[in-house]
Amino acid sequence: MLAQMPRPHGFVPTMGALHAGHSSLVAAARAECKTVSASIFVNPLQFAPGEDLEKYPRDFEGDIAKLEELGLDLLFSPDTAEMYPPGFSTSVDVGEMGNTYEGAVRPTHFRGVATVVAKLLTIMQPDVLFLGQKDAQQTAVLRRLVRDLGFPVEVRIVPTVRDSEGLALSSRNAYLTPQEREAAPTLYAALTAMRLLLHQGMTKDAAVAQAKSILSPLAQLDYLDLVSAKTFEPLSALQVPAFLIGAARFGKTRLLDNLWITK
Amino acid sequence: MLAQMPRPHGFVPTMGALHAGHSSLVAAARAECKTVSASIFVNPLQFAPGEDLEKYPRDFEGDIAKLEELGLDLLFSPDTAEMYPPGFSTSVDVGEMGNTYEGAVRPTHFRGVATVVAKLLTIMQPDVLFLGQKDAQQTAVLRRLVRDLGFPVEVRIVPTVRDSEGLALSSRNAYLTPQEREAAPTLYAALTAMRLLLHQGMTKDAAVAQAKSILSPLAQLDYLDLVSAKTFEPLSALQVPAFLIGAARFGKTRLLDNLWITK
Repeated sequence: MLAQMPRPHGFVPTMGALHAGHSSLVAAARAECKTVSASIFVNPLQFAPGEDLEKYPRDFEGDIAKLEELGLDLLFSPDTAEMYPPGFSTSVDVGEMGNTYEGAVRPTHFRGVATVVAKLLTIMQPDVLFLGQKDAQQTAVLRRLVRDLGFPVEVRIVPTVRDSEGLALSSRNAYLTPQEREAAPTLYAALTAMRLLLHQGMTKDAAVAQAKSILSPLAQLDYLDLVSAKTFEPLSALQVPAFLIGAARFGKTRLLDNLWITK
Repeated sequence: MLAQMPRPHGFVPTMGALHAGHSSLVAAARAECKTVSASIFVNPLQFAPGEDLEKYPRDFEGDIAKLEELGLDLLFSPDTAEMYPPGFSTSVDVGEMGNTYEGAVRPTHFRGVATVVAKLLTIMQPDVLFLGQKDAQQTAVLRRLVRDLGFPVEVRIVPTVRDSEGLALSSRNAYLTPQEREAAPTLYAALTAMRLLLHQGMTKDAAVAQAKSILSPLAQLDYLDLVSAKTFEPLSALQVPAFLIGAARFGKTRLLDNLWITK
């Protein structure tokens, strides 16, 4: 069936609980491709033991309605036994790039991401893969996966969608208390300040220190750093393309954000 | 280009130095498929440090002549930098099944095999993958890979081709001294005897002991065992489908052989 669909075929992998960030991915695919498909699969492999797999938000009915409205052509929503049948034992790993930052905090996370996306690409056979900039390290990991295994697919990174205060949309924002919700946009503010300071010529260490002072006292910072967009290795000074990346806990909820720097 | 080729498309991955065993793979593909492709790539990832990558036999001109005669439609013979460009860091691993027997003797071997075949399947997009029974554990590893990652490909296992004394054809047979060459068929004889004894109701341990006595004194046995054809786990008694597997060194040359047991 997939072989007969008009091409180019754009594919948007998701874990459901769709928000405007996902909508912008589907809209970008719709604008570029003749066929647009998406997947909804809450991938157990990318949750480490003790993480929020069970309480990860699910809204299948609401997701379907949104995707129909966006003009999706094809939805793939396998159950876990279809993706990981008994005896499943294969893993796909992009190496060191998946062990730093989010990979250091969440061991095996990017192996789970690479494994499921390799399988989704194999099944869906898209021409274009649409990924959200929001998960910056994931975009680097999946670009590497696509290049290394030779998937005949182009990767598009779609800009992060933010609310009016700058908070990056995320399914996990739903976990924030009202007070945490108010504090959360300071992560974006810190990144924005850091970008400005770097462009003004400040050293990275000084810019990080100053950006930290902008964060809400409610934020427990995991990291704030400047990395190569391609290798995700830390940069000591601004070189493009780069990501300015940050991760912080607000109460029990861990939020990520980043800025994409091209000049 | 691949998308336009008549289907079904059968694919035969090789490391070159083609012999009659490879020819039977191509012939099996030719008999079943409208398009037949092969690859020649001596995959560095599947050689452990200190193994015979450099001295692995190469005969590109001779290989081309054989493949043309067999009516091959398409040959893929990438250089190493095309398969593994700078910064390549991705690995595909089927887990425990790749760590026993050959995997125990050759750590990382099956990870290298799974990685290169995942990439070859992604690039070549065949409908049918033809593998030689000779590398029994490899067939189990690649069946698992195909199933786990959802490659839309059927796997065919083509029977081992033997010389008149029963020695399984292998590129590595060329390394044997005349004396070792004479001793080498005792590996096949030991497997054949073991099959007979198992069918006669002897226990596995007793059959292994008796089969060992058939081996040439020149053979240094690595293992002789009965395993599940699907999981490659050792079986304590005959259950089908199974492989009877053996590996032994004759001087510096390590040879493998197996029997496929279906009843």
